[in-house]
Amino acid sequence: MSEYIEHDQQGLSVGIVARKNFTFAAPPSEMVLENGTRFGPITLAYETYGTPAADRRNAILVLHALSGDAHAAGIHSREDPKPGWWDIMIGPGKGIDTDKFFVVSTNILGSCMGSTGPRSINPATGKAYGHNFPLVTIGDMVRAQKALMDHLGIEKILAVIGGSIGGMQVLEWCVRYPEMVFAAVPLATTTRHSALAIAFNEVARQAIMADPNWNHGDYYQGPRPDMGLAVARMIGHITYLSDEAMRHKFGRRLQDKSDFSFNFDADFQVESYLRYQGTKFVERFDANSFLYITKAADYFDLERQHGAGSLVGAFAKGKARFLVVSFTSDWLYPTYQSRAIVKALKKNGLEVSFCEIEAEWGHDAFLLPNTRLTSLIKGFLERVYTEIRQQ
Amino acid sequence: MSEYIEHDQQGLSVGIVARKNFTFAAPPSEMVLENGTRFGPITLAYETYGTPAADRRNAILVLHALSGDAHAAGIHSREDPKPGWWDIMIGPGKGIDTDKFFVVSTNILGSCMGSTGPRSINPATGKAYGHNFPLVTIGDMVRAQKALMDHLGIEKILAVIGGSIGGMQVLEWCVRYPEMVFAAVPLATTTRHSALAIAFNEVARQAIMADPNWNHGDYYQGPRPDMGLAVARMIGHITYLSDEAMRHKFGRRLQDKSDFSFNFDADFQVESYLRYQGTKFVERFDANSFLYITKAADYFDLERQHGAGSLVGAFAKGKARFLVVSFTSDWLYPTYQSRAIVKALKKNGLEVSFCEIEAEWGHDAFLLPNTRLTSLIKGFLERVYTEIRQQ
Repeated sequence: MSEYIEHDQQGLSVGIVARKNFTFAAPPSEMVLENGTRFGPITLAYETYGTPAADRRNAILVLHALSGDAHAAGIHSREDPKPGWWDIMIGPGKGIDTDKFFVVSTNILGSCMGSTGPRSINPATGKAYGHNFPLVTIGDMVRAQKALMDHLGIEKILAVIGGSIGGMQVLEWCVRYPEMVFAAVPLATTTRHSALAIAFNEVARQAIMADPNWNHGDYYQGPRPDMGLAVARMIGHITYLSDEAMRHKFGRRLQDKSDFSFNFDADFQVESYLRYQGTKFVERFDANSFLYITKAADYFDLERQHGAGSLVGAFAKGKARFLVVSFTSDWLYPTYQSRAIVKALKKNGLEVSFCEIEAEWGHDAFLLPNTRLTSLIKGFLERVYTEIRQQ
Repeated sequence: MSEYIEHDQQGLSVGIVARKNFTFAAPPSEMVLENGTRFGPITLAYETYGTPAADRRNAILVLHALSGDAHAAGIHSREDPKPGWWDIMIGPGKGIDTDKFFVVSTNILGSCMGSTGPRSINPATGKAYGHNFPLVTIGDMVRAQKALMDHLGIEKILAVIGGSIGGMQVLEWCVRYPEMVFAAVPLATTTRHSALAIAFNEVARQAIMADPNWNHGDYYQGPRPDMGLAVARMIGHITYLSDEAMRHKFGRRLQDKSDFSFNFDADFQVESYLRYQGTKFVERFDANSFLYITKAADYFDLERQHGAGSLVGAFAKGKARFLVVSFTSDWLYPTYQSRAIVKALKKNGLEVSFCEIEAEWGHDAFLLPNTRLTSLIKGFLERVYTEIRQQ
């Protein structure tokens, strides 16, 4: 592998990792998508951390949420020192220990972070796909990941791990390729969106599509729908927090002033926070990818697609050992949804550990430092790694 | 009074009511607003139902929420048969019985339903105020209502009743004019917005201000920011419902089709519902009024303004008898916020009845038919009407 791990002067791990790409090799490099259309060529951006064992049974597949990317851990260079989105969890000696495990992290199909998505150039036209990009599903994303695993020579994945939309992919992996998944860790996720979750996504999409610059998705030659995307991201950030989290983080504290502005400036800290999150997001994310990925999440319905309406039926094919984790203050995917997963897994006689972690940071909790979560994942991986080597 | 009550063939009451206006009479017809500026002229649209008693001690003031208007009960004419927004509660023999009580309902200052607001013509310029409209507060709205009460010759109001932002006005009335308020019914409300409530409002405002047609509030000569306002309203509708309410009302049911569209149409019923609510709203409401009223609600902070940070201190001046009502599934103004009101009232030795009504319809519950709510209000009004006449 081209990456290496070193330590800085404070003894913190600094993994310098390389960006990699995988393009479907077999001509015509296409996939038949769930909506029935043929689509290609497809490229997936990915990164790896750690070293594969000789039998490749130490592989862990990490799957990101809506706006994530392949850069889950380490840094790209001294000049580009932004750590990966789950660097607190992945690295030497960390919860997902790269001294032991070979970690693969890949950007999802439909995103804008290196994998093929609406912003990619359609070789047939020489222009960005835009609204001609097909509506890919969570199933399509996972099938593309399967091709990457084949490419890397990984026949059995020790553990598939992800939160939120990444957690949906974990569940999809378990029922679509049960023979390949030895263990699974779905975090802060659901088998299907509630009406509330769909509602939030729909309003966010409407905010983007209301921006005249969106131009029905055809904006890559002109101004981008930044205003709409910023509003969409603000809506998202409300769902990632919770009443309690916001009360602790912001309360009614004012921003840089002792009294109200009596105009439409950001008076409250929570307003500044949301505006900042919106503005920052448009610098790195593509509005069309936001539309496509949220729609894929809304369509995801494990019981409908794999169990004819029954979640117990959907998991009937499952074989993995599970660690299911929810967070008390997550009101996007509340604990009752994780409990439904646990119940259905148990009815199928599958081995499942479940933990609801007391956390006040809402849905975002799975991305934040949490010793409980780290030790749970670390312990679970130790155990399943022992088990896979005994087989 | 000019209105009369008749009955239709089904025996239902049909109150035909007249629109009325009150314009501050004393020259220069101005108010000094809380932000320190002078503003006028001011007109308030209002309606009345029932007949004032000789001593005018049967008056009830009904205060509407964000997008309401003065038309709370009855219909305007056979040709305009839309009943008032609280017609289920106000009328002969109803919870607020117009056979006994003289009900006054007025559109708030800053709205667009007949009272002076950003869409009104500024006589100094001959053009709509737009962004030159001052940022009025809940206190300013209540002070304008006080002038209307004076105009109607009502020195003591039997009960001030309202939900949501109307409930904020109820609380403001109680501490600002304690001698005038005999009883008060704040429904589904709060003494100050949580960070979460501010966050929702801020994102809704950003959606409006992101619409290029908004043009910094100066759009009355050109196209209106309908797209932005529709998104803002959709955000509002999410907060008016609840996870449970949406699950029962929509679940994951599809709209008019057996499968997904695999495009960005409204696949789910909840998506169609939100789009419809957004589209319908722009026909009747002004985007600037939405901005001004939500900001007033965010600024409202009873403890800060009237109690130097203490809610107990804020209610120290209060004299009214209270009926406080919250709803189990209201996550915009959860029950804990009503309990804080009740606690502070009791610490001041005030008489208070509190009821948390089991309801699955979220914040909207206070506007929906509910026999429990109706009988609570009816019983409370009977009692305080007996008490006021014994004084």
